[in-house]
Amino acid sequence: MKRIGIVDTTFARYDMTKDVVDVLTQYPGLIEWVRYTVPGIKDLPVACLKLFREKECDLVIALGMPGPKVKDKASTQIASQGLMEVQLMTMKHIIEVFVHEDEGGSPVELKNIMKDRASKHAQNAVDLLLFPEKLSSRAGQGVRQGFPDAGSL
Amino acid sequence: MKRIGIVDTTFARYDMTKDVVDVLTQYPGLIEWVRYTVPGIKDLPVACLKLFREKECDLVIALGMPGPKVKDKASTQIASQGLMEVQLMTMKHIIEVFVHEDEGGSPVELKNIMKDRASKHAQNAVDLLLFPEKLSSRAGQGVRQGFPDAGSL
Amino acid sequence: MKRIGIVDTTFARYDMTKDVVDVLTQYPGLIEWVRYTVPGIKDLPVACLKLFREKECDLVIALGMPGPKVKDKASTQIASQGLMEVQLMTMKHIIEVFVHEDEGGSPVELKNIMKDRASKHAQNAVDLLLFPEKLSSRAGQGVRQGFPDAGSL
Amino acid sequence: MKRIGIVDTTFARYDMTKDVVDVLTQYPGLIEWVRYTVPGIKDLPVACLKLFREKECDLVIALGMPGPKVKDKASTQIASQGLMEVQLMTMKHIIEVFVHEDEGGSPVELKNIMKDRASKHAQNAVDLLLFPEKLSSRAGQGVRQGFPDAGSL
Amino acid sequence: MKRIGIVDTTFARYDMTKDVVDVLTQYPGLIEWVRYTVPGIKDLPVACLKLFREKECDLVIALGMPGPKVKDKASTQIASQGLMEVQLMTMKHIIEVFVHEDEGGSPVELKNIMKDRASKHAQNAVDLLLFPEKLSSRAGQGVRQGFPDAGSL
Repeated sequence: MKRIGIVDTTFARYDMTKDVVDVLTQYPGLIEWVRYTVPGIKDLPVACLKLFREKECDLVIALGMPGPKVKDKASTQIASQGLMEVQLMTMKHIIEVFVHEDEGGSPVELKNIMKDRASKHAQNAVDLLLFPEKLSSRAGQGVRQGFPDAGSL
Repeated sequence: MKRIGIVDTTFARYDMTKDVVDVLTQYPGLIEWVRYTVPGIKDLPVACLKLFREKECDLVIALGMPGPKVKDKASTQIASQGLMEVQLMTMKHIIEVFVHEDEGGSPVELKNIMKDRASKHAQNAVDLLLFPEKLSSRAGQGVRQGFPDAGSL
Repeated sequence: MKRIGIVDTTFARYDMTKDVVDVLTQYPGLIEWVRYTVPGIKDLPVACLKLFREKECDLVIALGMPGPKVKDKASTQIASQGLMEVQLMTMKHIIEVFVHEDEGGSPVELKNIMKDRASKHAQNAVDLLLFPEKLSSRAGQGVRQGFPDAGSL
Repeated sequence: MKRIGIVDTTFARYDMTKDVVDVLTQYPGLIEWVRYTVPGIKDLPVACLKLFREKECDLVIALGMPGPKVKDKASTQIASQGLMEVQLMTMKHIIEVFVHEDEGGSPVELKNIMKDRASKHAQNAVDLLLFPEKLSSRAGQGVRQGFPDAGSL
Repeated sequence: MKRIGIVDTTFARYDMTKDVVDVLTQYPGLIEWVRYTVPGIKDLPVACLKLFREKECDLVIALGMPGPKVKDKASTQIASQGLMEVQLMTMKHIIEVFVHEDEGGSPVELKNIMKDRASKHAQNAVDLLLFPEKLSSRAGQGVRQGFPDAGSL
């Protein structure tokens, strides 16, 4: 049994945790999960660390929606640096699922990107833990999350 | 009893500590607080570390007002990186409450943003320590501090 | 016998691992290799760390294709910082082989850059482990990977 | 007796150490100081670390004058990141006194900014070590170094 | 006897090690040196760490020529961050001698900058190890490497 942590924010405008859980529940007896909600993306890294150290998670999925302003992009760098550092402290993967608010032209489009990216990365998380050979078979294939695959050259 | 550290600066043009304390005093017997003032935002991280290590704080609220110049934005990144690193060193949350001087069009507007952001994040700090389920119930709801909530998509 | 790790991504649009392996197989009995595939470039650093710590690799070649958007460039910085940190944690070289999607004007051109850079850096990896004096003999000579050498001034 | 380290550079075009020492000498028996000069701002962090670890300093004042070019601004980020990291390694304050060469319109103006900033930050350093309550009494007051105070909103 | 490490790259278009060695050989019995060549600037930090830990160097001179593209500037930040981190891990100076390819208008001009900067920084390295008081006597004097001194204000 592998335990996946899910960290999300109150700042995001769509609850991606639902889409992640929809994937994880397809692996009963193999995958269990625990959730931790924080205010914004800069609060995610220490939440991930706590899930690894206090809840014995094997991998964490970090969900966030960076805002469109310059200062939001700067905050994203800080958050991502922190997520990187936590991975190296714990030697465990964190799958960062960030959807920038300006990636979608309309609210519907943005929501669809968020759903697609969250679902596909939840599957990536499962594959990293249980089926790593599936990822190797797709290396260099231009796989995308949030959008259709770009394909190989 | 949980102890919250408050670090602030002489550089900021409004004393957000007052607004934070107004929230914290609503939790007598549950929350106590200690304050540490430094010159500018780049001095905040080591002050946070000292509050965690020397004053046994459970969480720190870091208050700052980055200036509007390019070099001020660069300093903000340094300060935020430091706050991130302290969180990972201590495995405790730091709630960064930064209001950029150019977020408000007028002094009154800027002051209102600062008051609102400080108050709401003080509540977030309390919730992280005492009522984490309140945050989970608001995940993905487009919650904002300093401005009205953006709402869910 | 030296062991080289190869980490690559499903995001990249060409499988550079093939070109790396073509070089490494020229050193039977001297070089062996192990592969690890992850979704995107920000997942590479912890994969490298795991190859060093769990698979006893002596050097890792990290293959990636950053996308063309501003946010992709930002992700590249995070990935590169992580690769740097892993090197300093383990005191071992990671050869970063990143080809930005916008380095090539056409798909064919991009693919050629990727093949050339992967092959030449695979040779650099071998030289660092087995023939370091070959590198010293080329110091300051304007050697390039992905493009023809620039030459010395 | 508290010991303050002063690190400065040969790159800077004005010797701010004089202004710092003018302040520190007003506290005989309370403050002593030691100096370390390096070539440029990127050499300051390890010099600070050596002053903390080898000379038992309680706080370090880091004096530097970043140049006006884009690459100088990039170097400033590296230097500031290093100063941040040293603070967190030692749990001691470093007061960064950087004056960008393009902050002053004329040489005289630039020199005046450097003198003012160095003096006022020397006082901040003394206050952090000996009179922290003085800083708290000025929290949120828009205090500036190098320029007149901005005042509170 | 002090040992100085020299790390350089095959990417650079001029062999600055020659100019460094010309300076170091002026101190027989006081300074000895060891060299390590890597492909590019992002490979320098771990090479420096190895020189400190495996070759007992007292200081390292890191020679590199960042390219002119935006992505080259980004790589420079990664390299410089790594050099900073190694200094703080070892508490020893690394003198970064980077000449950006676009600092010189012509190949001759670029080569002259590289020779001048390498020579002068080699002297700085010697002074830091053997004659630190020489540096203090030049503090705040606008000393430059690669170009004539800017002088004091």
